[in-house]
Order: sequence, then C-alpha cells, then structure tokens
Amino acid sequence: MTTAKARAVDGPDKSFRAAEIKRRDLDLTDILIEIKYAGICHSDIHTAHGEWGPVNYPLVPGHEIAGIVTEVGPEVTKYKVGDRVGVGCMVDSCGECENCVRGEEQYCLKGNIPTYAGVDKYGEPTQGGYSTHIVVTEDFVVKIPDNIELDAAAPLLCAGITTYSPLNRWGAGPGKKVAVVGLGGLGHMAVKIAHAMGADVTVLSQTLSKKEDGLQFGANNYYATSDPATFEKLAGSFDLIINTVSASINLDAYISLLSLDGTLVNVGAPGEPLSLNVMSLIGHRRSFAGSMIGGIRETQEMLDFCAEHDIAPNIEIISADEIDEAYKRVLASDVKYRFVIDTSTM
Amino acid sequence: MTTAKARAVDGPDKSFRAAEIKRRDLDLTDILIEIKYAGICHSDIHTAHGEWGPVNYPLVPGHEIAGIVTEVGPEVTKYKVGDRVGVGCMVDSCGECENCVRGEEQYCLKGNIPTYAGVDKYGEPTQGGYSTHIVVTEDFVVKIPDNIELDAAAPLLCAGITTYSPLNRWGAGPGKKVAVVGLGGLGHMAVKIAHAMGADVTVLSQTLSKKEDGLQFGANNYYATSDPATFEKLAGSFDLIINTVSASINLDAYISLLSLDGTLVNVGAPGEPLSLNVMSLIGHRRSFAGSMIGGIRETQEMLDFCAEHDIAPNIEIISADEIDEAYKRVLASDVKYRFVIDTSTM
Repeated sequence: MTTAKARAVDGPDKSFRAAEIKRRDLDLTDILIEIKYAGICHSDIHTAHGEWGPVNYPLVPGHEIAGIVTEVGPEVTKYKVGDRVGVGCMVDSCGECENCVRGEEQYCLKGNIPTYAGVDKYGEPTQGGYSTHIVVTEDFVVKIPDNIELDAAAPLLCAGITTYSPLNRWGAGPGKKVAVVGLGGLGHMAVKIAHAMGADVTVLSQTLSKKEDGLQFGANNYYATSDPATFEKLAGSFDLIINTVSASINLDAYISLLSLDGTLVNVGAPGEPLSLNVMSLIGHRRSFAGSMIGGIRETQEMLDFCAEHDIAPNIEIISADEIDEAYKRVLASDVKYRFVIDTSTM
Repeated sequence: MTTAKARAVDGPDKSFRAAEIKRRDLDLTDILIEIKYAGICHSDIHTAHGEWGPVNYPLVPGHEIAGIVTEVGPEVTKYKVGDRVGVGCMVDSCGECENCVRGEEQYCLKGNIPTYAGVDKYGEPTQGGYSTHIVVTEDFVVKIPDNIELDAAAPLLCAGITTYSPLNRWGAGPGKKVAVVGLGGLGHMAVKIAHAMGADVTVLSQTLSKKEDGLQFGANNYYATSDPATFEKLAGSFDLIINTVSASINLDAYISLLSLDGTLVNVGAPGEPLSLNVMSLIGHRRSFAGSMIGGIRETQEMLDFCAEHDIAPNIEIISADEIDEAYKRVLASDVKYRFVIDTSTM
C-alpha cells in the first residue's frame, strides 16, 4: 500500500480538506504514478456537489492527471520508472465487450471504471487525481510526449480528448467549417485542435468578451450568440458544430446553422431533456449527435497530435489550498482556461 | 398547351372531383409525359387537407408518377418519344447552388419546386400526378427500367427513394443491423431495399398484425413496439434505424436501441417538437438525423437497384373515383401497401 496525500470533500456543501488515502499494492500490470499536476474539470464540481447522483464521500476528484512513473508491476511492458505519463477519465473497463475490443473503452458495455467516484475491480471506491499518487493498470495509462510540459498535459486528458475525438470522427480538416459553442476549458481546446486540423473555425460565445483570445487560439471568426443577427447571418454555414456548453440551449437555433449533411455534436449533457423540431434535421439531412471523451488509443493519438502541432491548454496553476476558490471561479466562468493543481503543495 | 384530365380537390374538407388542367407548351428541354399511374402518398393527404400550411386550391396532388414520353422539346437529349419515365416529388430547382451542383436538388438552397402545391419558374402553380399528362424539364425525369412495371414503378418515386437514400447514405449492407419503424408504404419499401442491400433487417411495428408480410418482404425479425419487453430486449442492437412514422414517438426509447455509433434517421416529421435526452446520445456516440427523398441521380440509381434486385412495392390499383375512399383507408392504415391510381380511369 502507498499512502498518498490528497484533497477530499466530505459532502455536497463541504470545503476541501487535506486527507491521506491508500493506493493499492501493485498488481501484475499496475503502475504507481507520482502525480505532478491535476486539472480541474467542471465534472469534478458536478460530482463533488452531488449533482450527478449520490456520491460515496469522502471524495477525491480529478481525472486530468499528469505525473511520473515511480514503480511498475512485474508484468508491465509499456512503461518504466521515470516515464512521463497521464491518466484521464477512466482507469479500467471489461476489456472483452465489442466496444472495448474496438478500442472504445469509454463506451464499455459493462461500464468503464471512472477515475473517481467509481468502484474498481477489487471492489474499492476509486479516488482521483487531487492527490500525490495513483495506481493504474498500464492499459489505461498514456505516454506524455517530451515536448508537452506536465502541467499543460493534464487538461489534455479530459478537455483535450473530449474535443479531439468528435473533431476527428466527424472529419474536421481543410475545407471544413467548424463552429465551437462556448469558449471555456473544452471550447478553447476545441478551437486549437480544429485549427491545427486545418478547419475554418468559428467561435459562438454568449458575448464577445473573449474574442481576442479566441482569435489568438486559431479561430477565424467569433460571434456573440446573444445577438439574434448571428443566427440569421450564419444560417446553413457549418459542417460541424461542437457544443461544449452543458446548459440547455435552443437546439433548433444551433441546428439551423448546419449546412447539408452537417452535424451538431454535444460533448456535455444538460440535466433536462431538450426539445427538437425534426423538420430542421430532415430539410438539410442534418444530424444531432453526442460524444464522450475518447478511447485510450485515441487519447494517445491526441497527445501525439498536440505534441506535433505544439498545442497546449492555457492554464492557471493553483495550490491545493485554492481548490474551493477555483471551483467558485469555474462556476463564475472566471478561468482562462483551466485550473491545474500543483500537487507538490498537497 | 395540353389539356389534361385530372382529379382535383377544392378545399381541406372537399371530395375529389373531375377537372381539366392545362399543361404548358414544351420549353426547350421539356418533356410531355402521358401519365399511366400515380401513387397515393400520405403527403398528398396532409397537403390536400391543408395540414401543412395554406394551399392554393384547386389542388391536384400526386408525386409518384409513371408514364410514357409523348413529346419532347427541341433541345431534349436524354429522352425520346415512347420512353418509360417517372417523376417524383420535385420538378425543378435552381441548378446553381452548391447542393444542386452536388446533385442533391431536394436540398436546393433556393427551395426545390415541388411537383404539386408549388410555383414553377413561369410563376404558375404546379399540379401533380392525379392527371393524364404532365410537362417536366428533362433533368427532373428519370428512366424506368424495362423490368419494372409502370404501376409498380410509381411508388418508387417517393416511397422508394425516401427510404433508399438514407439506407444508402448510412451504409445499410452486409454485417449491418437495420431496424425499420412502421410497416406502411415507406416501411415496406425500406424492408425490401435494406434486405436487398444485405443488411440484417428488423421491423418495429405497433403490433404483430403484419408480421407475416414483413418477414416475406425480407425482414429477419419482427417485434411489436406496444410490448415494453421489445425495448429491453433490443437495447443497443442496431447500427441504423429508419423511422417511417411521422407521428410523435418516444425518441429516447428508440435511440436506446442503437449500438455504438448508431443513427436513428427520421424520414417523416411530426408536427410537434420532440423531446430528447442528450445523455442517451453521448453515452454511445449515437446520432439522430433526418433525410428527405433523394436527388435525381440517386433516384435513378434507386430505380436501377430495384430493377437489378427485382424489388417492387406491393400495390393496390384503384380507379380515379376511388381516391376519397383510398385516403380514408390510408388514414386507417388499411392499405397493403400503396394505392396506385390507374389514370386511364380519369
């Protein structure tokens, strides 16, 4: 057993506190990782606040993890001590269902094991990256390329893959017009990645307050969705829209922005069902789709793509004592564009 | 001008009556077709009853048209007198927008000219196939292969292409599991075509009353959607679902039947917006899409496919005097599986 320092929360309304958690002894294919940085994802907040269903507190969130291998199990073949590695939103899956066999472990038919707030195959609750160490089976660990700093690598493990995967699957690239709804942690990665893929990128944000940033990240255009003229002007424009906003949106309005065969992909889900006018799909053979993170193979591909194209998130490093404050600022959209915890401050 | 006999309706609550309508003199690329058979589509009924917006009565419906070329304009190159031809849901489009240039005239950005209840480029109201003659520019005429009877060809021009196009686009074929919702005029064509494409086909119908027919059309399985066990049993089963039912459905229930990357395609639109739980898309990277008829090139491809695979709709021939009665029977789902008017009875 390894004792790790961590930051845990004891209930929906509680503040984070210093904690010690146990990490299991290494099984045959396990890796012990000394966590250097952990990103703060909006999902962490939803889960910590109990908004996504009952939580087994105390909870240590965090699924954007970057660190160094410090020990490997006897049958580990892919990593060695000293390797720079990452862990994302899941730490295991059945490995046998058709989706796992296809390398789409995030869609494991038996349910993947989330990095925190899940139960692992030993029957123990999983605890996440707001801690100094974690043990993960090597198949759910990815290699961080040398030219990506560890602090910048962390958010790629969720925000990066969540946007890369649908951009990749729906063919963002030269000649394609891609819109990104929302310029937060996910949105700013979507812009950078879509731009690097060669697409013409438009940001659709509530206001123009982050326009300068958006253009600097690689967007060709930037429009305010609070201005009704935006929807008239851009009607039928986009091959692909990546909606990073989890709040309820006027689906029909965004679908009207798609061209023939265009697809609107939600990477977040609002709590309420959305209403949709089917005629707006039929009249232009449009699609409305959803996408959830990415598989392990694709996560590695995303990291390699970011390394090749010199893509990194814009981050603000915080200490472990600043997590509560960071949560408040995320909820107030006051973050440019991802908080990353320096775990040496645990 | 050609005077054609027709059957027209004068208002939402009126019966059909005998009428005479004028067909324009042939323009350079026009073709005069002697209509032999015209199918009755549910859209005809919606339009005749004024359910899809205001209608300029008197109205002659009909967009499933099969006949013989009797005269051609001086610059016609594709057809000659005596050719067996068909006309579907549209008779013109701008020809210049990006969708028209791609051969997707049904999605013309300026709006295609519908075969009836539209206004043609001469400013005249268009009148449809419940008549003895029609004049259409040659680019919107398709050739009916020799081994398809004219009466059976008629319904292919709408019911056939409306189902062929999404089956084709979303890759129905060997190794694919396709479900068809509803076994009416469109549904029975979808089953035949998907089966001929090599897919494993399942019919999802309210009851099992047409099960024998469905299996005979080529379905491998047949389930009643009135039985809740159907949705449990088939969860996550299908790569593609073609929904031919225009009435409101429980979208989430049908989406739950899709496997990873599966798509539910609506070819009809309910009058009301539908409610959709986005999580059911995200959790399996599923899509909800719409599709509307097909382009002219694809319509010809569909006819050739049906000829090659010996596919024809099951039809019931009626006389012009039986249109009102046929409408009632369509509304009561009492048709196996398409009414076709013999225009010699006009």
